[in-house]
Amino acid sequence: MPLSQSAATELSAIRTARVRTIASALLAVETSGTGFFDITPEVGRFLAAIEARDGVVLLYLKHTSASLVIQENADPDVQTDRVTALSRIAPERAGWVHDVEGPDDMPAHIKAMVNGVALHVPVADGQMALGTWQAIYVAEHRARAHRRAVMLQFIGECGQQ
Amino acid sequence: MPLSQSAATELSAIRTARVRTIASALLAVETSGTGFFDITPEVGRFLAAIEARDGVVLLYLKHTSASLVIQENADPDVQTDRVTALSRIAPERAGWVHDVEGPDDMPAHIKAMVNGVALHVPVADGQMALGTWQAIYVAEHRARAHRRAVMLQFIGECGQQ
Amino acid sequence: MPLSQSAATELSAIRTARVRTIASALLAVETSGTGFFDITPEVGRFLAAIEARDGVVLLYLKHTSASLVIQENADPDVQTDRVTALSRIAPERAGWVHDVEGPDDMPAHIKAMVNGVALHVPVADGQMALGTWQAIYVAEHRARAHRRAVMLQFIGECGQQ
Repeated sequence: MPLSQSAATELSAIRTARVRTIASALLAVETSGTGFFDITPEVGRFLAAIEARDGVVLLYLKHTSASLVIQENADPDVQTDRVTALSRIAPERAGWVHDVEGPDDMPAHIKAMVNGVALHVPVADGQMALGTWQAIYVAEHRARAHRRAVMLQFIGECGQQ
Repeated sequence: MPLSQSAATELSAIRTARVRTIASALLAVETSGTGFFDITPEVGRFLAAIEARDGVVLLYLKHTSASLVIQENADPDVQTDRVTALSRIAPERAGWVHDVEGPDDMPAHIKAMVNGVALHVPVADGQMALGTWQAIYVAEHRARAHRRAVMLQFIGECGQQ
Repeated sequence: MPLSQSAATELSAIRTARVRTIASALLAVETSGTGFFDITPEVGRFLAAIEARDGVVLLYLKHTSASLVIQENADPDVQTDRVTALSRIAPERAGWVHDVEGPDDMPAHIKAMVNGVALHVPVADGQMALGTWQAIYVAEHRARAHRRAVMLQFIGECGQQ
């Protein structure tokens, strides 16, 4: 089975815009414990507030026991399975040396490393170019509620410049 | 064993360019089922089409059951092992709640979460600054063929401005 | 247990800056074998050298058997557990087809795929907007020492323009 191959591809027309501004704001998100918290509407409101047109929005989470994830937003079962999958990748009480902050702490760091804390989404005409089923989540990996900080930055053309 | 330490480092000369333009296009990629599909030449053609000079190219995949990966392009065995590794991280029929779309669907979401759907590559003089063995892949995690959409965006100096 | 929900959120005041310049430099990092090597001070020195103000710094690692990670910088035990966690995700001698470069080679590729090689950190007033416990690491996944190349790029307002 050849697992790497060239694929039939097609490139759309190219669209250009001036880059003038970087606009930044800090989004605070109150999680209620382990799970995925959809922040797509909040990112949309940020883009509306700055009158974004074409560009890209960058997101950065300032924590080491939570992460940023673009994932399926349709079936709640998928959320459950994502939590299960992450706890299989980084189970509690698996002989971790670091356990002073509770059994969920070291697994949380590993989940954050695997998922990552930085990502971007393209923006066209002020709208995020998300796929049909995509949403942006803060993934909380600690058992308890936390206040998480996400830095939002837009680079491109916008009204605020 | 000290696992975190400072390393001997060396910083090159700094090179600057004007940022004027963001150029965007959508790349459609026809996968033939599970595997890694090299899109490095297509990204190169996009950069040539916009006459890119210095800057950065951002890639974003609009799906939740495929991902973007920068990886070794030399030995086909590495591709096989990558597929194996991902199916160990997210095996089929492992008690997933979400299984209405087939046994490969929930594992595909988990693989996409672990790998991610957004990344960037630096561009110098119109060429991607990839390492010697690096290529850019669309990783298809579903068993069947799919048409996948990748948004390409260049930020920096280019002819189209 | 509802695992996806909307969260209470709060958006800060928005701050804007002009985007004028992209500044790039290559950072060489001498690792001493498997482990996490903190490059946060080096990235800070790059930002100081270009007199960065507001913007974003992008990092890109030009290798397929090491990765870039933002993680906890406080307890050395966390570093040990991260190495353990990655070797559980991608163990040596686990039936990999690709083994011509030694037992640590294919696991290193998988760890690099899972962690990724591209990330960004926001910059405000020349300082990286890292969380309290965050540092930027080159994660070396090979057993032996390697010289690793990280491309640093700043987009935003800076003195060098």
